[in-house]
Amino acid sequence: MRQRYKPWVDDYLRNNSQLVLPNAHEHKNNWQSVFSNQNPLHLEIGTGKGQFLVGMAKKFPDVNFIGIELEKRTIVSAAQKMIEEKLDNVLLLNENAIDLSEFFATNEISTIYLNFSDPWPKNRHEKRRLTYHTFLKQYNKILKPGSEIIFKTDNQGLFEYSLVRFSEYGMKLKEVNLDLHNHMDPENIMTEYEEKFSAKGQRIHRCRVAFE
Amino acid sequence: MRQRYKPWVDDYLRNNSQLVLPNAHEHKNNWQSVFSNQNPLHLEIGTGKGQFLVGMAKKFPDVNFIGIELEKRTIVSAAQKMIEEKLDNVLLLNENAIDLSEFFATNEISTIYLNFSDPWPKNRHEKRRLTYHTFLKQYNKILKPGSEIIFKTDNQGLFEYSLVRFSEYGMKLKEVNLDLHNHMDPENIMTEYEEKFSAKGQRIHRCRVAFE
Repeated sequence: MRQRYKPWVDDYLRNNSQLVLPNAHEHKNNWQSVFSNQNPLHLEIGTGKGQFLVGMAKKFPDVNFIGIELEKRTIVSAAQKMIEEKLDNVLLLNENAIDLSEFFATNEISTIYLNFSDPWPKNRHEKRRLTYHTFLKQYNKILKPGSEIIFKTDNQGLFEYSLVRFSEYGMKLKEVNLDLHNHMDPENIMTEYEEKFSAKGQRIHRCRVAFE
Repeated sequence: MRQRYKPWVDDYLRNNSQLVLPNAHEHKNNWQSVFSNQNPLHLEIGTGKGQFLVGMAKKFPDVNFIGIELEKRTIVSAAQKMIEEKLDNVLLLNENAIDLSEFFATNEISTIYLNFSDPWPKNRHEKRRLTYHTFLKQYNKILKPGSEIIFKTDNQGLFEYSLVRFSEYGMKLKEVNLDLHNHMDPENIMTEYEEKFSAKGQRIHRCRVAFE
C-alpha cells in the first residue's frame, strides 16, 4: 500500500527542499548560517508528524529547531504543518539518526528531545533504543556541556531502563515526572501520540537529564 | 490515648533489651560482636511494625539486620514478631535516625533500606525527607563503598524527588521499578503498608542506588 504514495511523497520532498533539507551533512558545523541567525539549536530525534516541533517553534521563536525523521510519509505530514504555520525557525532532515556526528559538530546542539521513542522491548533489540549507551555517546558529543536531553515516554519499561542508562553514563537527572499530565505543566507541548494516549489515561513520564 | 499504654510499653522494652538494644551508641564499630558473627550488616531506617525486617531476616539468615524505629508503641509490635519467630539475626534500636554516625562507624553497613518513608510533601519540610542530601551524606559515611540503598515508596512525589537527589549527590541508579507489584518480583518482601496499599491498586516504586 505504501508504495502507492511514494512518487507523490518524493515530489513533495523535492519541491520543499528549503524545509526538508537534502544533503544535511553539508551543513555540519554551519547550521546557524542556514538559519541566518545565532540562535541556539534544538534537535528532536524522531519528529513523527511534527506536532511537538511546530508547537515548540511557535512558542520559542528565538530558538532554531531541527527535526529528524526517517519515514518519508511521516516527515511530509510534519513539513505540511510547518509550511501552513509559516515557521522560519524549523528545519527537517529525512535521515537516519544512527550517526548524528555526520550532521552536527561537537557542541553544536543546545537541547535534544526524545519523544515517545520506539521502546524496542525485546532484549535483543536493546541496541536500537535511543537511550542505549552508543546513542548517549553521540548526544554527549554534539551537545554543549551542561545541555539537557528532555525525554518523554508513556512506556514504563523504556523509562525505567533509560533512567538507569543515563545514570550509568554519568549523566545527572535534573527532573523526573512520572505523571506529566496530572502535574499540569502548562509549558508542556504535546506530540500527536501523547495527546492520544494521555487522553486514554496513559501516564506520561518525562525527565530532564544533562551530561556533567 | 497513647499515654495509657506507655507503662506497659516501657516495661516491654526494658524486659526485651537483648532485642531492642538500649545504649546503641556503645556498639558502634562493634556490631559483629553483638551478633557474634562476621555476617554483613543491613539497616532499615523506619522499621515500623517490622514485617519487612522479619521477612528479610528469615529469608537471609546469613545477614545481620538492624531496624531503627523511633515510635515506642510501633517498635514493640516489631519486637513481638521477632520474638515469635525466634530470629537471632535481627536487632532493633528505638532511636531517632537523625545522626546515624552515633551508632555506626564508617563503612560498617552493607545495605540500607528505606521503606515508605514519610514523604513530608511541604517544601518547608524538605529537610526531613530521608533522601535529603544531609541524610545521603550520612548514608555515604556508614555504607561500605559500592553498597546500595534500596528505596521503596508508593509516594510519587517523594520518588521523583529522591531520584533527582540521588543523581545530584553523584549516586548511581542500579535499578528503577515504577510498578513493583505488576513486575512480579518474587524476591520482594512487603512491609505492612505496602501490603495494604498495593492491594488497593496503589503503584509501588522501588529503586536501588549506590554511592560511587
